[in-house]
Amino acid sequence: MSLSPGQTLRELRERKPLVHQITNYVVMNETANATLALGALPVMAHAREEVEEMVALAGALVINIGTLSPHWVEAMLIAGKAANAGGVPVVLDPVGAGATRYRTDTARRILDEVKVAVLRGNQGEVATLVGVQAEVRGVESIGAGGEPAELARAAARSLGIVASVTGVVDHVSDGDRVLAVANGHELLAAVSGTGCMSSAITGCFLAAKREAPLEAAAEALAAFGVAGEDAARDAKGPGSFHVGLYDALAALEPETLDSRAKIT
Amino acid sequence: MSLSPGQTLRELRERKPLVHQITNYVVMNETANATLALGALPVMAHAREEVEEMVALAGALVINIGTLSPHWVEAMLIAGKAANAGGVPVVLDPVGAGATRYRTDTARRILDEVKVAVLRGNQGEVATLVGVQAEVRGVESIGAGGEPAELARAAARSLGIVASVTGVVDHVSDGDRVLAVANGHELLAAVSGTGCMSSAITGCFLAAKREAPLEAAAEALAAFGVAGEDAARDAKGPGSFHVGLYDALAALEPETLDSRAKIT
Amino acid sequence: MSLSPGQTLRELRERKPLVHQITNYVVMNETANATLALGALPVMAHAREEVEEMVALAGALVINIGTLSPHWVEAMLIAGKAANAGGVPVVLDPVGAGATRYRTDTARRILDEVKVAVLRGNQGEVATLVGVQAEVRGVESIGAGGEPAELARAAARSLGIVASVTGVVDHVSDGDRVLAVANGHELLAAVSGTGCMSSAITGCFLAAKREAPLEAAAEALAAFGVAGEDAARDAKGPGSFHVGLYDALAALEPETLDSRAKIT
Repeated sequence: MSLSPGQTLRELRERKPLVHQITNYVVMNETANATLALGALPVMAHAREEVEEMVALAGALVINIGTLSPHWVEAMLIAGKAANAGGVPVVLDPVGAGATRYRTDTARRILDEVKVAVLRGNQGEVATLVGVQAEVRGVESIGAGGEPAELARAAARSLGIVASVTGVVDHVSDGDRVLAVANGHELLAAVSGTGCMSSAITGCFLAAKREAPLEAAAEALAAFGVAGEDAARDAKGPGSFHVGLYDALAALEPETLDSRAKIT
Repeated sequence: MSLSPGQTLRELRERKPLVHQITNYVVMNETANATLALGALPVMAHAREEVEEMVALAGALVINIGTLSPHWVEAMLIAGKAANAGGVPVVLDPVGAGATRYRTDTARRILDEVKVAVLRGNQGEVATLVGVQAEVRGVESIGAGGEPAELARAAARSLGIVASVTGVVDHVSDGDRVLAVANGHELLAAVSGTGCMSSAITGCFLAAKREAPLEAAAEALAAFGVAGEDAARDAKGPGSFHVGLYDALAALEPETLDSRAKIT
Repeated sequence: MSLSPGQTLRELRERKPLVHQITNYVVMNETANATLALGALPVMAHAREEVEEMVALAGALVINIGTLSPHWVEAMLIAGKAANAGGVPVVLDPVGAGATRYRTDTARRILDEVKVAVLRGNQGEVATLVGVQAEVRGVESIGAGGEPAELARAAARSLGIVASVTGVVDHVSDGDRVLAVANGHELLAAVSGTGCMSSAITGCFLAAKREAPLEAAAEALAAFGVAGEDAARDAKGPGSFHVGLYDALAALEPETLDSRAKIT
């Protein structure tokens, strides 16, 4: 499967897949707007009364554990299993795994009970889930053992998923190959929820290219990173950068995206 | 009752009515800020422990089913009945009705148990609630049977409410008259929650003109549409448009609003 | 303890304390981004399953009752007690106290069961909690009895806390001294959640200067007010002001902050 974020973006905008997101309270508006700006259709639904029906309509399911509570965990598991049954690919964002036992256990439980296509997290979160020593301060990865490319590969192998480890350079692996994505801008770290947005966009790309989760995950990060580079150009700080990010996602050109993507 | 969005806006800004909103997690900040920018006072409260007391202080209640769960449905019903008992007008936004049975049933249940003054939805949502074939993808109306003016009239008649059906041109009907509102801009569809904002603003106008829900609902959409036109002028995409929308709502001039409103 | 918002900001940015926030749905993204822009690390966590563990990692806990429900109240109490046990300072924002009995009672209950370091509210909310007649419309203070400096002193004395009463001029008191903070801009009142942001920033300053809550609370309001003054400079309305506020918080210079702070 060849890499072409531009081609995947073009197909995504034509098909406008519904991306069902069970995510945290902090970023719901942000991931909805990032999804819409990119060209897909977001829907947030978390009641056990409706998640199975909603996910059946979706092109991808994004589960994000940023503000957990038991009812939400239950809904995530129900939705995840329904997604699996219907062949809908699942992205998991294990926000804050490593910071508290509840988050670590919940992320592990989802990985156990649901077939996750792509795990998208920072280094500390992913390291925690494969049992490597890591420091997670709240939802920030402060320091994590080891080389990120190797971490991605190890996580992919031990969990049987595509691991998408974001950082200054992102690393995406299926356990065999490792793709490094060097797009992005440091202002992305200055806005709350950009990690969650990258997971939502991973869901969008996966909906458009579900047969190739490794490539879809890397393409998503490249596209988001290019948008970050564009948004940084006129930003005066995190506020204007945040606003510019939606403008930049909407303005992404499939024609130039392949040449701007730094995937190796 | 004559139509004058400028006059209603002027009264609203003088009285600063409290608009109680039981709405979804995705747009709470957005509808609160739209309400405040327009000149009314928003309050979000959803606990059964306080909704009756809160709604008694309010000039209008806006119920929005965008991210449902059973406790919230219960609070919506309690608040709606208290609003009815106190003569506080109720707006219902049936977000995603038609997408899942839970949403459709909840919207119907609210319409059954609460006297709703204005139902503000997109074509697919409103069509679903009057039993017309419609396609709702998540929370987006993809295609809906029939002509929107007729849909608004039919919904108003069969449900005994004012139906406010938004789209490229909006149609508001009390079952007898149909008002068409041609203000707005296509960028409104590029930002998540603008439909919810239009419901919040409908609540604001209804609080200022509760004796004339048909006119209030049409005036609200005209005012919001004019703000959208203003915000689009300097927008570079959905992010800057979204920001400009609050600036434009705050800058709306009662003096020029009547001449800019395209209500027929 | 001397007053130096610049010095406290410098230390805060070096230490990057984690500020645990149990806050309302409306402003979660806003307070997270304000915290991050200032230079601290926000984390939102509200499940009883994890709040004790999370608060143990934190430099401060901010409790905000803006959108209450019983599970959240329970988590606030558990987290507050754990914060007390671990010596983590607690900020309480009694959003809407006075508007409904549930909010007033919950704020009182937290003040009873948790040792609160700083109570940050508007005049109506604080007046309510010390039994002074006040009018709170939803979450806005409309009119409140008495002179704000005296209210701050009386609240501090009767509750045994630092009272931080915000308004056109803010007043912070430990029951003995009263500091007045004259920074800020009227556009702060035009954006939903700026009060909540000021509480979050109070938590950040308190994390950096926990031995001096009176000074930390006043410095926080001065810093936030200076950022508001900067953001107002290029704002066209509440939307662009809101965005500029994050840029301004990130751009605050410790070197000039002391001379710009109007604390008397």
